[in-house]
Amino acid sequence: MRFLHTADWHIGKRLGDYSLLADQHAMFHQIEQVAQAEKVDAIVIAGDLYDRSVPSEEAIRELNGELATLNLHDKFPVLAISGNHDSATRLGVGQQWFTQTNMYMHTSLDSAFKPVVLGDTQFFLLPFFGLQEARNYFADDQLKDMNAIMTRIVAEMQQQFASDKHHVLVAHFFAGGSQRNADSETATEIGGLTPVPLSILAPFDYVALGHLHNRNALTNPHIKYSGSPLKFSVSEADVEKGVWIVDTDKATVDWHPLVPVHDIHVLKNSFAQLTSSSFVQQYPQDDYYAIILEDQDIIPNVMTRLRQYYPQILSLRREHGFAQLMQGQSRKRQAQQDPMTILGDFFEQVTSNPLTERQIKWARQALQAARKDQADETN
Amino acid sequence: MRFLHTADWHIGKRLGDYSLLADQHAMFHQIEQVAQAEKVDAIVIAGDLYDRSVPSEEAIRELNGELATLNLHDKFPVLAISGNHDSATRLGVGQQWFTQTNMYMHTSLDSAFKPVVLGDTQFFLLPFFGLQEARNYFADDQLKDMNAIMTRIVAEMQQQFASDKHHVLVAHFFAGGSQRNADSETATEIGGLTPVPLSILAPFDYVALGHLHNRNALTNPHIKYSGSPLKFSVSEADVEKGVWIVDTDKATVDWHPLVPVHDIHVLKNSFAQLTSSSFVQQYPQDDYYAIILEDQDIIPNVMTRLRQYYPQILSLRREHGFAQLMQGQSRKRQAQQDPMTILGDFFEQVTSNPLTERQIKWARQALQAARKDQADETN
Repeated sequence: MRFLHTADWHIGKRLGDYSLLADQHAMFHQIEQVAQAEKVDAIVIAGDLYDRSVPSEEAIRELNGELATLNLHDKFPVLAISGNHDSATRLGVGQQWFTQTNMYMHTSLDSAFKPVVLGDTQFFLLPFFGLQEARNYFADDQLKDMNAIMTRIVAEMQQQFASDKHHVLVAHFFAGGSQRNADSETATEIGGLTPVPLSILAPFDYVALGHLHNRNALTNPHIKYSGSPLKFSVSEADVEKGVWIVDTDKATVDWHPLVPVHDIHVLKNSFAQLTSSSFVQQYPQDDYYAIILEDQDIIPNVMTRLRQYYPQILSLRREHGFAQLMQGQSRKRQAQQDPMTILGDFFEQVTSNPLTERQIKWARQALQAARKDQADETN
Repeated sequence: MRFLHTADWHIGKRLGDYSLLADQHAMFHQIEQVAQAEKVDAIVIAGDLYDRSVPSEEAIRELNGELATLNLHDKFPVLAISGNHDSATRLGVGQQWFTQTNMYMHTSLDSAFKPVVLGDTQFFLLPFFGLQEARNYFADDQLKDMNAIMTRIVAEMQQQFASDKHHVLVAHFFAGGSQRNADSETATEIGGLTPVPLSILAPFDYVALGHLHNRNALTNPHIKYSGSPLKFSVSEADVEKGVWIVDTDKATVDWHPLVPVHDIHVLKNSFAQLTSSSFVQQYPQDDYYAIILEDQDIIPNVMTRLRQYYPQILSLRREHGFAQLMQGQSRKRQAQQDPMTILGDFFEQVTSNPLTERQIKWARQALQAARKDQADETN
């Protein structure tokens, strides 16, 4: 049995103001090509197929199309589970029909204990679940934490182990010893769950995990996160994305990197450098950028000007803050400027956005009121 | 070919404050039983399977379960289309897999022209569509209205007609000469569309329509609404619900009534009669009631008292309004009552609801203010 392990597709996710659907579509085709080139016998998707419990219609069309391509067109068996971002009910629509073509979409705990057998391997598909859901399933309120529950779950699975088969667990949780990425996997999403100790997972030949977006969050030869196929935040800018190809015969686990369609770059430099043609030409216009300015001066219309070179800016901040305002020359120079210009520049420096028309109106009114007060005092 | 024609399930619809899911579940089993008893070869559902474009998880589980029962358990071919209440995308999830077991869920105009052939019959499944969608499909902006568009659609379908087959159209629209029910099918839902003239539909041996909830909205031997299987508003209280059994061999169309699990009753009577034990015992406690009181007097706590006999009241109104207040005896009697009691009774008469705590607080404050004003004037 040779299978591809991926997870955390988060179809429909946005990166700041930008839809990732086109990138996700392109990335899917890379995954498909890896599967074809590696002649895998199955594709494992370890949860968080959607980004939201109620996905948009565009996201539904995308995922439905991707699954149809893999399963109905390419004839790959597909083994998938729901993650904490998925609505088990919404993701599970049609699952009773999918099995006819070896697509297994497991979305409830009770479906985890009957393994899907493909070739020489038993796959146990364990969707994301809540503690209480597990207590209800086992009718045992004494199961106090993830440790106790996973011990019980694995024991129940082991009773189904066929001795002549390999045993693979597909699951979506926070495994012990993993490094979380605070930006893209919040504590809330982890669900306040205690990590699952790796020792509990020892009975399996391979554990295909989803949940954490960086495959390096955990380094274990047989228990692996695939990570997400795309970078979902600036904090993942330097994380290599890819999929695992697992071969149960050869007992190998190989990494296959995916090439981002539109990469995320963190650029830390001066405004002058960032906008110089020699610098700019190193970077594709339609990639995503997090910009850290080393300048300390006010730069009028900074965001608008940067966007001429880097249209898709995710964030803009100052490495060293601003030089103290309103002192000496600077103060004198500013005193000669229109107050609205000074305000607009300052606002854009701090928030990375120009003033809206409504904000300009408010500011004008406040300025008039201040001038009137001043005039009243003077008179 | 012998098939059952139903439509407008509106799974997830509420009747006032009450969820209809349990009723819909029970009604589904009646439809299933009719299909089994009548040994039909297929089940046609002519749109509005869900009540909302983003159905609740409960509604999704219900419909998914119903379709799995009919198609996977009972092995009925199912021919369904999306209606104006359905999101074509959301209802269409999994449709590529469904066809393997003869379930056809057509949700886009382009899928309408390739007939589904079952036995001696070609079924053309035409989902609900917008005018512009049709113009885009035909790449013809000159198609000015439903008349022109349906003429074009039927002509295109006729090109696919096999001469040795019967031809059935399944569609979801407002057919010419139909009587709308203003309560349950709003003009907005009709989409401002002009009715489709019946003459355009003449080429078909049978047209299985969805959209209007009363089968009697249209009386034509071959073009029929099945209506909804449940009563969805008080205005449908006297409408008999059911399904059509269509036999293309015998050229028969037979009506099979469904028995409502919880019927809707309109009771017009005096409060004394409505609450007398001989009257009450005629009516099941868990049915739904629209009550029209013939009394003209104020009846304290009327809603609370009626609910002791009829817990599920959908509406309460007065047939003859109220006797003029504040006159003669009545006025004298009321003058002796606490103003808050009079207000509370009046509010409940008119709105069918008791005052909330917040409303009582507001009323008290207003009363105090009024008294203070009066005192100020007197002093």
